[in-house]
Amino acid sequence: MKTVEVDLGDRSYPIYIGAGLLNQGELLRKHIPGKRVLIVTNETIAPLYLERVRAALLEGGKLQVDEVVLPDGEEYKSMEVLGKVWDKALESRMDRGVTFLALGGGVVGDMTGFAAACYQRGVHFVQVPTTVMAQVDSSVGGKTGVNHPLGKNMIGAFYQPRVVLVDTDTLATLPDRELASGISEVIKYGLIRDAPFFEWLEANMDRLLARDPEAIAYAVERSCINKAEVVAADERESSEGVRATLNLGHTFGHAIETGTGYGVWLHGEAVAAGTVMAADLSYRLGWIDKSLHDRIVALMQRARLPVLPPASMTTEQFRSLMAVDKKVLAGKLRLILLRGPLGNCVVTGDFDPAKLEETLAHFTTAAQAQPKH
Amino acid sequence: MKTVEVDLGDRSYPIYIGAGLLNQGELLRKHIPGKRVLIVTNETIAPLYLERVRAALLEGGKLQVDEVVLPDGEEYKSMEVLGKVWDKALESRMDRGVTFLALGGGVVGDMTGFAAACYQRGVHFVQVPTTVMAQVDSSVGGKTGVNHPLGKNMIGAFYQPRVVLVDTDTLATLPDRELASGISEVIKYGLIRDAPFFEWLEANMDRLLARDPEAIAYAVERSCINKAEVVAADERESSEGVRATLNLGHTFGHAIETGTGYGVWLHGEAVAAGTVMAADLSYRLGWIDKSLHDRIVALMQRARLPVLPPASMTTEQFRSLMAVDKKVLAGKLRLILLRGPLGNCVVTGDFDPAKLEETLAHFTTAAQAQPKH
Repeated sequence: MKTVEVDLGDRSYPIYIGAGLLNQGELLRKHIPGKRVLIVTNETIAPLYLERVRAALLEGGKLQVDEVVLPDGEEYKSMEVLGKVWDKALESRMDRGVTFLALGGGVVGDMTGFAAACYQRGVHFVQVPTTVMAQVDSSVGGKTGVNHPLGKNMIGAFYQPRVVLVDTDTLATLPDRELASGISEVIKYGLIRDAPFFEWLEANMDRLLARDPEAIAYAVERSCINKAEVVAADERESSEGVRATLNLGHTFGHAIETGTGYGVWLHGEAVAAGTVMAADLSYRLGWIDKSLHDRIVALMQRARLPVLPPASMTTEQFRSLMAVDKKVLAGKLRLILLRGPLGNCVVTGDFDPAKLEETLAHFTTAAQAQPKH
Repeated sequence: MKTVEVDLGDRSYPIYIGAGLLNQGELLRKHIPGKRVLIVTNETIAPLYLERVRAALLEGGKLQVDEVVLPDGEEYKSMEVLGKVWDKALESRMDRGVTFLALGGGVVGDMTGFAAACYQRGVHFVQVPTTVMAQVDSSVGGKTGVNHPLGKNMIGAFYQPRVVLVDTDTLATLPDRELASGISEVIKYGLIRDAPFFEWLEANMDRLLARDPEAIAYAVERSCINKAEVVAADERESSEGVRATLNLGHTFGHAIETGTGYGVWLHGEAVAAGTVMAADLSYRLGWIDKSLHDRIVALMQRARLPVLPPASMTTEQFRSLMAVDKKVLAGKLRLILLRGPLGNCVVTGDFDPAKLEETLAHFTTAAQAQPKH
């Protein structure tokens, strides 16, 4: 087992990473201070792992465990569905000592964290992520929330878990499309701050796609180390801080997710196309060279991720949806763009808007000419 | 003008108290860091004060001001109605630099604060309370949230404003029933920690009810000083801290509000009956003497506040609703009870439950015999 520490003062917590960790109940139980746990999961994950997690918690006989099972998919990441968690907690008379445990992917984790942040103004929270996306990114760092019809993740809170337990065995049941979606965020860490990791991914992508346990464990750990360092430096994504760099490709990607309707594209698929768009704009601005741009496209394609937005998206839709992005400041759109050699990026609103128009025109035209998804 | 400081480290803020402060726009503007403001108010307050606040903000020409007008009443303090604030903010493309300004009573303040806490994971927040309830209690201290059908204020966040601006002139338009409701919380400060203030209230209740400006200003200031001291000592209501004492009468009171349907009784009315119930239980436990009990009943009656719960409430309803109170810990009900001479209270689960049963039986029987409200 590997342990990565997220260093946030009195809100610090460990990420445990390893195979078979769900069978080691004490890893979870030692981070649960009260007597009651509400497991929040979804209809896909419940038949696979709910009983094992429940058993891990019940071992020792000190905890009372309830659960709520949500529908599966980004389209259910809404305030309305979130309300079911609060309904269950109140109907079961859970008090402020309760722990909400997220068992599932990024949607379950984000929703459960936000539910915990707001239930009786804040209860304990634990993450058991079961997808690559959640294990390498969304379960770490405390961003929680739900979507609004007008924008991704617009309603939420910063709320840190007490522990993140990653059992890499759970990836055995992950559909290929979900695996690729998570790899999109793994590639991100290489691009924004870890050039050797990007090169490792170029050398080991086939092992990852074949779910080689050693390769998976390495990719998860290295991603968590990168995420933990960034979050520790800038927990609340200040306008001058580094946390925003984790959103490489996300402004374009969120527009795709919102524009096509939540759940049509997976988050990582949208981020992959968005990352290629950000790379394209960076290249048009003269900030990266052609060979880096091409390596990014090639690696996304090898991971079987889309490199074009959906054919249905228009430039006007991109403009309108990107204008409500959370990184907009004083009305000005800011983007994470690559600049310099591999592993370097900037958060900036200081770029030629005509080049962004060129990028949008290029990709929407190319997508219509050759629908990829 | 008086200024009371709420001392919370880097989240400290001033409470400005005085007559005509809404005409001094710079008091608000100097605490608004961005360029946009969303005023949240209700249908009752909007025709009275919205234009004045808007003018105060627009003076100087640096701010863009929008507003959203919610329906008036505790029954609208719900996630569903809160959604209108987010809808408006997103439709108007407000970014993270926006300030949400609450203009109204406790319901508007609690909802606006929670909306600000969650919009894009947190935006600036300012309070302009226009009721006694909000000016002496709910606008100070950062408790925000909405009701759930199964419990008062069950969904929310601790989220501090950047400034609280109390224009005591706004009380001129306050209905008598709302005035009395706020006085219920004023009396609370005397009971839990400020015996001289309780005695001042006994001597000056008629002046308060007659809206004598000097008396009102004194009561608001002294209440804010008490609240600020308690909140500074225990911002997040830890289980050992003093903040819970501000909830004297509230466990009974919340049960009344939830049991009768939100909005039937005003919050302060329910707290008044609840405070008398807490005093009754304290007396039955032998913790306060009869004369203090009788002074409390007499002062509530002079303030034209109810001293019995509604006739419709049963003991079973009280038991069931009180069991989901936020102060319940590890399944055990804790109450704020008076103990010792005037001005002293305890937060405790350590009392004879048979005495609580006696209190519930006494009050539900008395309420049925003599409906008061």
